[in-house]
Amino acid sequence: MKKLGIGLIGSGFMGRAHALAFRTDGGVFELPATVELEMLADHSAEAASRAAQALGFKRSTSDWQALIDDPAVDIVAITTPNILHKPMAMAAIAAGKAVYCEKPLAVTADDARELTEAAERAGVVNLVGFNYLKNPMIELAREIVQSGEIGEITGFRGIHAEDFMANPNAPYNWRCDPAQAGGALADIGSHIISLARYLVGDIDAVCGQLATVHKQRPLPDGSGVKPVSIDDEAQFLVRFANGATGSISTSWIASGRKMQLDFELYGTKGSLAFTQERFNELKLYRSVQAKGREGYTLITAGPDHPPYGAFCPAPGHQIGFNDLKVIEVKALIDAVCGHGQAYPDFHEAWQVEKVAEAVKLSAHEGRWASVEQH
Amino acid sequence: MKKLGIGLIGSGFMGRAHALAFRTDGGVFELPATVELEMLADHSAEAASRAAQALGFKRSTSDWQALIDDPAVDIVAITTPNILHKPMAMAAIAAGKAVYCEKPLAVTADDARELTEAAERAGVVNLVGFNYLKNPMIELAREIVQSGEIGEITGFRGIHAEDFMANPNAPYNWRCDPAQAGGALADIGSHIISLARYLVGDIDAVCGQLATVHKQRPLPDGSGVKPVSIDDEAQFLVRFANGATGSISTSWIASGRKMQLDFELYGTKGSLAFTQERFNELKLYRSVQAKGREGYTLITAGPDHPPYGAFCPAPGHQIGFNDLKVIEVKALIDAVCGHGQAYPDFHEAWQVEKVAEAVKLSAHEGRWASVEQH
Amino acid sequence: MKKLGIGLIGSGFMGRAHALAFRTDGGVFELPATVELEMLADHSAEAASRAAQALGFKRSTSDWQALIDDPAVDIVAITTPNILHKPMAMAAIAAGKAVYCEKPLAVTADDARELTEAAERAGVVNLVGFNYLKNPMIELAREIVQSGEIGEITGFRGIHAEDFMANPNAPYNWRCDPAQAGGALADIGSHIISLARYLVGDIDAVCGQLATVHKQRPLPDGSGVKPVSIDDEAQFLVRFANGATGSISTSWIASGRKMQLDFELYGTKGSLAFTQERFNELKLYRSVQAKGREGYTLITAGPDHPPYGAFCPAPGHQIGFNDLKVIEVKALIDAVCGHGQAYPDFHEAWQVEKVAEAVKLSAHEGRWASVEQH
Amino acid sequence: MKKLGIGLIGSGFMGRAHALAFRTDGGVFELPATVELEMLADHSAEAASRAAQALGFKRSTSDWQALIDDPAVDIVAITTPNILHKPMAMAAIAAGKAVYCEKPLAVTADDARELTEAAERAGVVNLVGFNYLKNPMIELAREIVQSGEIGEITGFRGIHAEDFMANPNAPYNWRCDPAQAGGALADIGSHIISLARYLVGDIDAVCGQLATVHKQRPLPDGSGVKPVSIDDEAQFLVRFANGATGSISTSWIASGRKMQLDFELYGTKGSLAFTQERFNELKLYRSVQAKGREGYTLITAGPDHPPYGAFCPAPGHQIGFNDLKVIEVKALIDAVCGHGQAYPDFHEAWQVEKVAEAVKLSAHEGRWASVEQH
Repeated sequence: MKKLGIGLIGSGFMGRAHALAFRTDGGVFELPATVELEMLADHSAEAASRAAQALGFKRSTSDWQALIDDPAVDIVAITTPNILHKPMAMAAIAAGKAVYCEKPLAVTADDARELTEAAERAGVVNLVGFNYLKNPMIELAREIVQSGEIGEITGFRGIHAEDFMANPNAPYNWRCDPAQAGGALADIGSHIISLARYLVGDIDAVCGQLATVHKQRPLPDGSGVKPVSIDDEAQFLVRFANGATGSISTSWIASGRKMQLDFELYGTKGSLAFTQERFNELKLYRSVQAKGREGYTLITAGPDHPPYGAFCPAPGHQIGFNDLKVIEVKALIDAVCGHGQAYPDFHEAWQVEKVAEAVKLSAHEGRWASVEQH
Repeated sequence: MKKLGIGLIGSGFMGRAHALAFRTDGGVFELPATVELEMLADHSAEAASRAAQALGFKRSTSDWQALIDDPAVDIVAITTPNILHKPMAMAAIAAGKAVYCEKPLAVTADDARELTEAAERAGVVNLVGFNYLKNPMIELAREIVQSGEIGEITGFRGIHAEDFMANPNAPYNWRCDPAQAGGALADIGSHIISLARYLVGDIDAVCGQLATVHKQRPLPDGSGVKPVSIDDEAQFLVRFANGATGSISTSWIASGRKMQLDFELYGTKGSLAFTQERFNELKLYRSVQAKGREGYTLITAGPDHPPYGAFCPAPGHQIGFNDLKVIEVKALIDAVCGHGQAYPDFHEAWQVEKVAEAVKLSAHEGRWASVEQH
Repeated sequence: MKKLGIGLIGSGFMGRAHALAFRTDGGVFELPATVELEMLADHSAEAASRAAQALGFKRSTSDWQALIDDPAVDIVAITTPNILHKPMAMAAIAAGKAVYCEKPLAVTADDARELTEAAERAGVVNLVGFNYLKNPMIELAREIVQSGEIGEITGFRGIHAEDFMANPNAPYNWRCDPAQAGGALADIGSHIISLARYLVGDIDAVCGQLATVHKQRPLPDGSGVKPVSIDDEAQFLVRFANGATGSISTSWIASGRKMQLDFELYGTKGSLAFTQERFNELKLYRSVQAKGREGYTLITAGPDHPPYGAFCPAPGHQIGFNDLKVIEVKALIDAVCGHGQAYPDFHEAWQVEKVAEAVKLSAHEGRWASVEQH
Repeated sequence: MKKLGIGLIGSGFMGRAHALAFRTDGGVFELPATVELEMLADHSAEAASRAAQALGFKRSTSDWQALIDDPAVDIVAITTPNILHKPMAMAAIAAGKAVYCEKPLAVTADDARELTEAAERAGVVNLVGFNYLKNPMIELAREIVQSGEIGEITGFRGIHAEDFMANPNAPYNWRCDPAQAGGALADIGSHIISLARYLVGDIDAVCGQLATVHKQRPLPDGSGVKPVSIDDEAQFLVRFANGATGSISTSWIASGRKMQLDFELYGTKGSLAFTQERFNELKLYRSVQAKGREGYTLITAGPDHPPYGAFCPAPGHQIGFNDLKVIEVKALIDAVCGHGQAYPDFHEAWQVEKVAEAVKLSAHEGRWASVEQH
């Protein structure tokens, strides 16, 4: 069988998740290739070496360009801070490698466009890590929407709220820097935008507001405080191309919320409700039910919801967050082997960034902003 | 003890709820007066007579002015279609009677202002039926907010969604008429606006969108269809005077939702979450909790949450929707007897209507609209 | 219309609930008679007078026999401590009055039998206050069971747990006295037994255990402690006459539980789940559902679930605990006026007590005990 | 680093879960050894070869004894039908290999005792797959219990209900055979028994009933039906050695339940509630809370609940069923490398089987049965 060498850049939260997914994938899915954890790059040789050993990579380097150029590396996985995504992805594209990049793809929509165009020109497989789309229950939601089971979609209300920056003493980090795609909207808001697009479709226009609640944060080294200008929370109205309307919120200071990636989706014949806090469940309401028996049905993930069955043959046992990455990696490997399209790809990530950028524009100018479709 | 004669105009959903509340109040609360169900007015003598008998009123009439003028009537309760609120309330004020009017107070904010000014000039007690504010758990939420238990309030996300107009074949009625304060925003949206104001405070500015999903509806007599222009759903961004931001949604076509009057409210030290679908519960998160024990606490209504104890000495037994009206009527009777201020009064209802009107303006002009404070 | 005079004995938690229900009933339901709050009896003339005024009764007395004998009293409502139920109910039966008695009907099953036989001989209407059976969602559950919608019933798992005696310093009271039908099983366990019988049918045999967790409690007057021998919690296995099996638990020391009257009921074609903590909801599972769409449907109480509509024409608004008593009183008044049978009557309460007594016997002898059917 | 060769017998549901866990473990945890998927045995050479390839094992065989004897195999993992556990485990013990066996350990308690004694005599590491004990939230529950945070434990109410045999046409299989540890109690009931023991401690006595609801089932080959005598559901009362009491239910015909492994656990100062259907959550009630703020706190799994953090550094993201096996395997490998004791070991599994056997005895004889401690 074909062998695919993986080169991973970065070994933080997402780096580990990527490594684990590559390692696990062949045990869960029947893959068209075998996966080799070939090389890991990190900011220093020592860090890279330590991470490579911990995560099971054969080799390590502090030189990510060397990783990209390595002939044994077929897929370049990028899990570094946002600002590094573009140069790394560009280099990988230039080297003709498949690219698997964490979200957000780039710091600006223009950068995302450049990356999309470069990847398409080069014809390399490209995938962006919007892992929550890979949930079998989200696939089910999409199937329910697309099959017309709940009629035409008329409304969407979504949110991605967490509280990891709720403490005003949470130190300043690169996520607080506007030049690095900082802020709640860019950082986690991209998940709920991608979900809205996946389920409802293109967004035509938005109107939003941003709020910086904690106007300064302590420096990590304790040497003082630094002013903050990025958004701690954002809300925006949306108009979809198909006529549906709705609103989306995003916050990283939502005290108490650990993973509130929620939506309610309304159609003319029913509705759906979902929260990532219980992501093995989906609530479905159908308008036509027996009299006195109407209500939301709580669907529990099981083998009837592919690819749940690849993880467990029994319903109700639940998959975990890392399993979403395992599903994502399966899509990547299939695409690299010529089976199907990788999704969500750079093009999709670009569309997501255009929405986020339009929200920012609209917030700064106090008006609606349109989102051009490509 | 003092006797208070009640005159009720209208005997539909809300008319019955008023009647029941007046009847029950003295059994639940120690009142400063006894309540007499004196007279009921309805559109015809026959309807009024039938309703008076069913609801326990002594007399009936088809002439609401006569009811207002009746010397035995001390409190005029108005539960007619919105368009009739103003003339009836004006007449009651002119007669020096206390006025208890269902929401929305009037068809326009200007009408609400006129009513407010007239009532204040006349010095009559006035109360508007935003019954959901009377929930002990909402009082608890307000106490938590005002005591600073969850810090400064930074965000609010609210919704009032039901589905009684979700079916495109739900017939055209006065709620579909813009001249009668029709539309989801005016009809049920006023509840979530009043709740936002009650908990967070004045709203400075809004930016909204309205959507008419079902563009025509059948006439009730089956003689054809009628075009509809009012909103089936609306969403808007809000900026509160205290700096908090948020979003509010309202819909009467939200398939599956029967009483989704929900909010999430975030502060710098915690948060609250509530849904009217389980209105004897409130979720409270406090940022400072023992390590590994953090989470939302589900508080269940009980005697520690006044006036729950007036209904039942044991926690967890639950009060019902009609009990909210019983609490509301208690506030009215107290105010009429000189104990405390009636709240929410006409002035407050006027502020609510200004917000709704600003949402409509902002939606029509595609921009933010400010809400003047009075 | 016929007039019915109510005589209420006792004015505690349940006395107030009865008074409120009688007062409210005619406003909610179209009754075949008018209700007069005629007389209230309590342990002293002063207490009775104060309670009568607070609850709206015309007259008061410290002599309950006088109340029973009063010609204007048609219905005798008994809400005193358990040990007084029998003499009072016997006197009322002897006087040919309708009797409405709180649960448990008597201190022993034998007493309950005597009461049943006396009431049947005298032909007086008799009703016992198992209020939770009056919930529209319990009626729905019964309808679902009896219609065969979920097949043959095979299993039942029930509980009634509260925590009002969880604190070891909760003082000794009559509920701690075995001679007065004390203990969690007799006091609150009767609710879940009545529910099991209402939904599944006769119970043939039980096997239980009782536990006294707090072996002494302080005297209310602070003069010391008193040993306690009644059960703080009990669990028992059940075999129903129709072959279904199950288990039932009851506790009044279940820290955190305020009204956990829950059951899960399994049939060959589906199941039900319910908790009194959210008693306007019922969960229904049907085994035959569309592939990948299976799950429990959360049914919310509404006008399709009689008599919810008498309280509110809109679904999802919720009825409260006191409304259950209003429904119960409706059944009583109907029966007194010759419309239908009062249920649950003394006979049913006797059956419930036989089950509880069999549990105690089985616990003391460490074996199964059969429950004779009558 | 030390190398550990894994020999896996069986490749069904649990076989795959074992394989995946061994494969993944080193990516999640820092292990004291590297793991080699050395050999897989299955009922035929072909099945074994296919499974070995799919699951990533180097070699395969149809001869499980050969696998056990293979010098490269250090750990023997047994995931075959229950009846085969004993001979395989005995052989592995005889060969001095570490044994990792799925639950239930054996078909009778006596067999479990023999296995325990043999393993202890041989001094080999032994572990049984009660995977649900490995949940970080169960560890948290145990910590809360053992620290005295909720006082002395007084009550336990547990259940393990699923519905995979609810359909009367679910075919006869080895789980229906009493000689093979068939029946709901032995098959899935062992999970809730082990959980009760883990949290509350030794069980002194039980009293139970078993029910065979579907008295025959179709043969898998369609050639007819076969009578069934094992239990489809069981309920039993328990008395713990520490004085706590409770009840436990188990069913595999609980229509609608996919993974209802639930418990409620009461102490003198609080309580816990848990369901495996949402196993990243634990509800905690503490009796001493601020007035009016009491309630269950919903704790969400996060890095404060080891070893959650090994899977994900952010709370609320959730681990999945397969991750429980990853944690289990970590404990095994640590023990094999001399770090800590493997738990739950054969001795514990023996205790669990004694409880189940006592339930059966008590059910057949209609009386309480004691469970001897060892």
